[in-house]
Amino acid sequence: MFDGTNYCGWQVQKNGISIQQTLQDALQKVLNERPDVMGCSRTDSGVHANNFYVNFKSENPLECEAILRALNFYLPHDIAVLECHDMPIDFHARYSALGKEYIYKIYNGKIRNPFNEKYALYYPYKIDCDLINKAAVYFIGKHDFKAFMAKGSSVKDTVRTITELRAEQSGDLIIIRISADGFLYNMVRIITGTLLDICRGKIKPDDIADIIVSKDRNKAGSTVKPHGLYLNRVFYEN
Amino acid sequence: MFDGTNYCGWQVQKNGISIQQTLQDALQKVLNERPDVMGCSRTDSGVHANNFYVNFKSENPLECEAILRALNFYLPHDIAVLECHDMPIDFHARYSALGKEYIYKIYNGKIRNPFNEKYALYYPYKIDCDLINKAAVYFIGKHDFKAFMAKGSSVKDTVRTITELRAEQSGDLIIIRISADGFLYNMVRIITGTLLDICRGKIKPDDIADIIVSKDRNKAGSTVKPHGLYLNRVFYEN
Repeated sequence: MFDGTNYCGWQVQKNGISIQQTLQDALQKVLNERPDVMGCSRTDSGVHANNFYVNFKSENPLECEAILRALNFYLPHDIAVLECHDMPIDFHARYSALGKEYIYKIYNGKIRNPFNEKYALYYPYKIDCDLINKAAVYFIGKHDFKAFMAKGSSVKDTVRTITELRAEQSGDLIIIRISADGFLYNMVRIITGTLLDICRGKIKPDDIADIIVSKDRNKAGSTVKPHGLYLNRVFYEN
Repeated sequence: MFDGTNYCGWQVQKNGISIQQTLQDALQKVLNERPDVMGCSRTDSGVHANNFYVNFKSENPLECEAILRALNFYLPHDIAVLECHDMPIDFHARYSALGKEYIYKIYNGKIRNPFNEKYALYYPYKIDCDLINKAAVYFIGKHDFKAFMAKGSSVKDTVRTITELRAEQSGDLIIIRISADGFLYNMVRIITGTLLDICRGKIKPDDIADIIVSKDRNKAGSTVKPHGLYLNRVFYEN
């Protein structure tokens, strides 16, 4: 679990401190070795995680419970390790994942909320969850989501299966929940931007099918900011 | 409403930026004059406010709705003005207040939560809300709360009336809610520290009556950190 505000994302980068590097530094203090830590996802700068899975190999006989406690002692307070388990040798946090769930938080109050500043997108225009859920139907299923991938990504296979996409309202907070077997670069943020454009009347719900078929990034909506995005769950076998 | 994390509290201080000063700077840009802004309370460094009231006098004929919008434009994103009204000339945010409600948030999870780091006290020991509510009874009413005032405060009249004190649990979050006609310096933080000491068995619920009568700060519990404290409501006539 991490508050991504002060990090350049998961992956080690030249500019800025990454979650991966911070976790490896803490792990080195605990294990007296520096294992390669594999993460389940490459989250971007400013993106948060309610659940994030990693794996590493170590020769150190320290018990999981002791590693957990020691890691939380050495980690900065914006990263917390919730559990630590011995896993089969072929487990890989990223490649063993069957799917993931992201949530995107939007603060829809009339006046911005200081406490949500880094944790939800401030969006003062009307959001119609029913309209979003009507448009969501077009996204669900196995499609080529190239139109919803950031330009410049080198990924070749852009077919993904979205299993769930819906908007929920709780007071002034709107949560967009999306599950898929995998996500393209910026996919959740572009889908969310497109759904907000639908609420503002710039795109119609039934345009979604055409946008998907077009595979044209220019036809989809804008990429919303990273600070509303949370990796929420990762699905593994059993 | 403000996130007090980056401020030295409400009042203008030599070291650090205050909410008052930040609000006056924004108001100066809006009104082309620099009125003295009176606050309803002198919150400490790091303390937050869900609701905070201020008053000022101005000759500027700008409408309230325009002042509200312009203030929120100029203010940094950790302070938001929720409403702006014309008031009778004798209204004073502090002296007209009949009472206030503070809440103190405690995160009681087994492992700390990165998202609550600046917004709730992390306290991993067992908290028994029933026990707190049993002890709370001794606080309610008109008492001399000198034992629950920070040493060094120059206030002479230390009699206050607590009208409500109770603990509520919502998942791993515990909220202590306290209303009174007024509060002594650090009073909520010392009462909360005392209630936590009761949960750890250091103080018994029925000791509270004796501690109040003793007027001895040393007999009460420790002062908990400021970042869990929120000014929640201020009560005025009508």
